[in-house]
Amino acid sequence: MDDRSFYHSVQDTTESEEFLEHVFRIILEEAVRKGMDVREKVCNWKDPEELQSLLDLELRSSKESPNKLLEYCQDVFRYSVKTGHPHFSNQLFSGLDLYALAGRMITEALNTSMATYETAPVFVLMEEVLLKKLRELIGWQTGDGIFCPGGSISNMFAMNLARYRRYPDCKQKGLWALPKLVAFTSLECHYSIQKAAAFLGIGTDNVVLVQVDDRGKIIPEELEKEICDAKSQDRVPFLVSATSGTTVLGAFDPLNEIATVCKKHGLWLHVDATWGGSALFSRQHRSLLNGIERADSVSWNAHKMLATGLQCAAFLLKDKSDLLKQCHSASASYLFQTDKCYDISYDTGDKSIQCGRKVDCLKFWLMWKANGTEGLEKRVDRAFSLAKYLVEEIKKREGFHLVMEPEFVNLCFWFIPPSLRGKEKCDGYWERLGKVAPVIKERMVKKGSMMVGYQPHGSKVNFFRQIVVNPSTTEDDMNFFLDEIEKLGHDL
Amino acid sequence: MDDRSFYHSVQDTTESEEFLEHVFRIILEEAVRKGMDVREKVCNWKDPEELQSLLDLELRSSKESPNKLLEYCQDVFRYSVKTGHPHFSNQLFSGLDLYALAGRMITEALNTSMATYETAPVFVLMEEVLLKKLRELIGWQTGDGIFCPGGSISNMFAMNLARYRRYPDCKQKGLWALPKLVAFTSLECHYSIQKAAAFLGIGTDNVVLVQVDDRGKIIPEELEKEICDAKSQDRVPFLVSATSGTTVLGAFDPLNEIATVCKKHGLWLHVDATWGGSALFSRQHRSLLNGIERADSVSWNAHKMLATGLQCAAFLLKDKSDLLKQCHSASASYLFQTDKCYDISYDTGDKSIQCGRKVDCLKFWLMWKANGTEGLEKRVDRAFSLAKYLVEEIKKREGFHLVMEPEFVNLCFWFIPPSLRGKEKCDGYWERLGKVAPVIKERMVKKGSMMVGYQPHGSKVNFFRQIVVNPSTTEDDMNFFLDEIEKLGHDL
Repeated sequence: MDDRSFYHSVQDTTESEEFLEHVFRIILEEAVRKGMDVREKVCNWKDPEELQSLLDLELRSSKESPNKLLEYCQDVFRYSVKTGHPHFSNQLFSGLDLYALAGRMITEALNTSMATYETAPVFVLMEEVLLKKLRELIGWQTGDGIFCPGGSISNMFAMNLARYRRYPDCKQKGLWALPKLVAFTSLECHYSIQKAAAFLGIGTDNVVLVQVDDRGKIIPEELEKEICDAKSQDRVPFLVSATSGTTVLGAFDPLNEIATVCKKHGLWLHVDATWGGSALFSRQHRSLLNGIERADSVSWNAHKMLATGLQCAAFLLKDKSDLLKQCHSASASYLFQTDKCYDISYDTGDKSIQCGRKVDCLKFWLMWKANGTEGLEKRVDRAFSLAKYLVEEIKKREGFHLVMEPEFVNLCFWFIPPSLRGKEKCDGYWERLGKVAPVIKERMVKKGSMMVGYQPHGSKVNFFRQIVVNPSTTEDDMNFFLDEIEKLGHDL
Repeated sequence: MDDRSFYHSVQDTTESEEFLEHVFRIILEEAVRKGMDVREKVCNWKDPEELQSLLDLELRSSKESPNKLLEYCQDVFRYSVKTGHPHFSNQLFSGLDLYALAGRMITEALNTSMATYETAPVFVLMEEVLLKKLRELIGWQTGDGIFCPGGSISNMFAMNLARYRRYPDCKQKGLWALPKLVAFTSLECHYSIQKAAAFLGIGTDNVVLVQVDDRGKIIPEELEKEICDAKSQDRVPFLVSATSGTTVLGAFDPLNEIATVCKKHGLWLHVDATWGGSALFSRQHRSLLNGIERADSVSWNAHKMLATGLQCAAFLLKDKSDLLKQCHSASASYLFQTDKCYDISYDTGDKSIQCGRKVDCLKFWLMWKANGTEGLEKRVDRAFSLAKYLVEEIKKREGFHLVMEPEFVNLCFWFIPPSLRGKEKCDGYWERLGKVAPVIKERMVKKGSMMVGYQPHGSKVNFFRQIVVNPSTTEDDMNFFLDEIEKLGHDL
């Protein structure tokens, strides 16, 4: 067998290198130039059934030609949402930082796993540098941490560690050996806390959703009351998960008050700062997270406000006793050999529940180098000031009604269409108002002019949630955004 | 405030686009041309302390110049391991498929989340097409599935689903409401099964590691005996996790026999085919997985044998009753609105424990299109035949001793250095032999000539584990590999 020729029948690198060049050109044109251009569409909406018929997704026996493949790539861009577009504010992430993208492309080209130093020497060291900087922003001089595949799993790590610190036996013996545990969070928490309780075998019934005030912040007195109630029922409180930047309202729980309650009752304090954590970069706004240094653990997603690109979810820990590794490790002898030629404390993979783990640090590190801490601070400050600008514009306009004065960059508001204005007291007003946002959303995506989220929330009917975080949005874009809602909803 | 100018102070796209161009050139040069060239080093080894001093990892207040950033990128390549290099066989993944890389670069440029159809229309449909094709290769006409962040988490999904199917109450009430569960797997299983039991609150003591035969395959009679033993102790068996392609030996458990035991006892059968699953592409070798169609769930990592790039971990399910979503969903109203303008069954994100979820399908899909199913079959067959070639070469050479005849592409063997040959009966032989592989490994990484794994295993002292899977390796590379071990170990 002539291996070289056989090899080339599998993968001809001349042809595929040329293909890669073409794809890079398409990326520059479609994702960078057009994808970030306000004159272009955010999305080219098709219903699932229609899109299915427009795409040739079928996987066949025979290989297809490079030209055909390039057409497929064009199709992928044509029908995908441009999350870097200044008019995309549908999620907590948006924007396209080209330094971060460069970091992501290098990551993909090097394609390695973070499990051990020997396969990821540069990235193991780089991850440590980043985690340390993030811990410093929290106010911790020492500690531990790891990047996770998303904030939901970071929150799971927190719950597992809190359980393990209190009952290390759980790892071997399971929950049957433990008293009935109970965790506390607020009614406004991210749904991943409930997912964590279900997945970790604790059960969603054992997550107490504590009352919040009218700003969506947990009420510390209610928290303490719930903790005492649980104790009186022979349930064992073990964790409080506070939120810094709730998903819908952008509320920050009062961390100092919560920390005092946790200290008093000996509970692990986790702060889900997946969304709001990046405010720590801003000397002007970091007070929103006052008290975070008293937490035991923090989840912080840099892919949201800092636009590093999905995923960049740091799980940070105050502990310096190697709790993370003790809790998660399995010491696989084929991977974490103890007779290696280097200091095996650099093999950090066993701190994770993953085996192969993607490199999430390079994109963040390179973007940080390119912007400096000051640049990242500016990015955060700019989001706050644009959000403030939008609030003022909303207040000036008839037909826009804030759900509440925001303290973060989530702007929640109703658009009251002409036919409903002044009819707040009429029967069916709220029901009719609740149908407005979905119609406007449908019209905007079908037009492709912008993407913004809406949702009902507690007793409140559907309202828009504008997330002002895309580093490339401007005041003009904010004006466009309001004009466009007016235009799309003028006949409702 | 002049937003446009302020924007440009944050991110100047002319400069950053140029930077991205440069980075792409570096990728082509370093990762593609040099990274896959046998004449270049696999790694440029530095101890952690030394590497720390060679890299400028510090994150500063001020931004750094594009030229400086490019130097940093060069440093990243200089000191990173080239996992696409023909002499890298240290892990179960290796190789660099440029079509897959193109798919990964597009994924990063589009930077979206798989949570909903509205943010990932193309990719939601594409993921379904891929999952369906993989299910067909298993032998299922219907079913469900999702891509996970790695095989360990896929295995966790299996354990959680098995628990949920039997005791749906667990999701709300936690494990305290359930009898003591017990899972079964083999002594040769991947360590993620124990990690899963710990994380899910079941406990590692409640995973029974069933005896294997001398090939590393589970003994079905032992499995049934253990199940009966557990039942007699009032523990409730709920899951058997069989392995198709064990991590060290590459063993395939006898799935038909195991399926029969599972059926008899009403247990969920999961097949951890993260490593061996890709053999299903080969008409010649797929019989290794005979019986897999009788499983309830399968984990299958395409980033291993198929070289799609990390991560591409499919979790596949025979169930068509929406069990996956019922088990994992939290129905967050801000994300999974029920009044959307499209069929919300396409919002597949709530099937996951993640919220934001990376797009893992495009790289696999594009590579499949570029190679055809036939091309992927060839890739698998080629790995098997190269492994066979290497076995024959090992047998021809003095000083090489197979741990066992392989049935897959894991080649486990000892290198017996000259000073130990013929001394099998001498005192301290095995102890001395166990020290050989680490020394040779140290020498090879410090030289940068190749990377291959070693490990002790059960009662066996350290042996090499060559993984023959890189699509760009040839018979020449196999010869080099043996020559190099001889050379590096000649004085031991």
